[in-house]
Amino acid sequence: MSPPDSVTSPDASYPVTPVNKVKRVHERGRYDKETVHAILDAALVCHIAYVIDGRPYCTPTSFWREGEHLYWHGSSASRMIRTQKGGVDVCLTVTHIDALVMARSGFHHSVNYRAVMAFGKAHIIEDVDTKLKLMDRFIDRIYPDRSKLIRQPNKQELKATTMIGMEIETASGKIRDKHVADDEEDYEGVKAWSSLYPITQVIGAPSDCPRQLPELTRPEGMSDFEPGTRLDELMTKTYRRTFG
Amino acid sequence: MSPPDSVTSPDASYPVTPVNKVKRVHERGRYDKETVHAILDAALVCHIAYVIDGRPYCTPTSFWREGEHLYWHGSSASRMIRTQKGGVDVCLTVTHIDALVMARSGFHHSVNYRAVMAFGKAHIIEDVDTKLKLMDRFIDRIYPDRSKLIRQPNKQELKATTMIGMEIETASGKIRDKHVADDEEDYEGVKAWSSLYPITQVIGAPSDCPRQLPELTRPEGMSDFEPGTRLDELMTKTYRRTFG
Repeated sequence: MSPPDSVTSPDASYPVTPVNKVKRVHERGRYDKETVHAILDAALVCHIAYVIDGRPYCTPTSFWREGEHLYWHGSSASRMIRTQKGGVDVCLTVTHIDALVMARSGFHHSVNYRAVMAFGKAHIIEDVDTKLKLMDRFIDRIYPDRSKLIRQPNKQELKATTMIGMEIETASGKIRDKHVADDEEDYEGVKAWSSLYPITQVIGAPSDCPRQLPELTRPEGMSDFEPGTRLDELMTKTYRRTFG
Repeated sequence: MSPPDSVTSPDASYPVTPVNKVKRVHERGRYDKETVHAILDAALVCHIAYVIDGRPYCTPTSFWREGEHLYWHGSSASRMIRTQKGGVDVCLTVTHIDALVMARSGFHHSVNYRAVMAFGKAHIIEDVDTKLKLMDRFIDRIYPDRSKLIRQPNKQELKATTMIGMEIETASGKIRDKHVADDEEDYEGVKAWSSLYPITQVIGAPSDCPRQLPELTRPEGMSDFEPGTRLDELMTKTYRRTFG
């Protein structure tokens, strides 16, 4: 895929514009591509906002990144996107929740998180060869090398699957990774037990398909799928196995 | 809060309109309020889509439900919402990810999930007494009875906090909770090990504030916060403690 951005390159960060500028608690904003990409690549699911007839919609869906492009498949907006030759504005957002943070005032209660908002224009991928390659990478991004094991899409499935892509025009990350942070006078003045509860998303033990053929065993590409593994760490590992 | 909807009431479900109708895999759609509310009340965080200058934005934030109203606080859209007397269209989406589902074709790979899209018009809560009550309930919804322990908002904090509310005009739920489901001929015809990996989001052991007063112990209201508890189950429990 595309080579990693040089740290000294002027393209190592997204330009800050009125669209992507982090407004609330702006010191949590991150614009460097390394941080933004790491947050995106650790995610299985994003939420995509788009506008139909002036009304906003927010749809959860799986997605993945290739360089400065993001891809996902069929959504209820597909028909609308198909009719817009110039592409359709979308905002693709990823959020990892890392902790509940209690405080001694309501104002300082918080959540630790890593989030990205990515802005661009969504297009339908019409070219069949490109679409077939993307469909393979969509599987392999989650389950490395699995596209070689499974049945390839038939004509009907290919037709029924809409693949959508966007180039990241601009993006921003936002991170809170602090412990409890209270007003100085509240640490002793307020008698409220305050703590941070970490939150993790983890995979459990696999439940095999009840119709599994008896001779089959877990393929090598699934070696990172150990029960108890954090989903964000798993997605980062499988991403790197597929995209290097 | 508002009494539970009667099962026989015509209001027990949201009307299906072109806005909330589940289009892709429509058999996964749910419109009954009991299901929609349960998905909302199990969540800590939602994603909210709104439109500024014709462009969509998707922001993650904490929120909660009271009857047919949803509330959240300050967002980068606050300034825009404040200027729109009639309210601003939003779509508030909640997603719980329950499993990775592998299959023998790319087409049948899936994710188990419970999601809700709720549509309505967002307003700023200007009335100070209402706002103060909502700020307490925002804390108590997550940490039962905590609003009585902490310092109340001062004038500056009250001014710096924007509280936003919307009435649910319509909503839909969407659920996939199946095991692997392949085309009949693929179960024997494709030699691909296929399994379902459950995904859960859990809280860990609390990390006390380093400046905790030595005499303080975990308050009674935190009794559901046992390390290893699923976040969706925890949020449902704490919700019921506060809203009955």
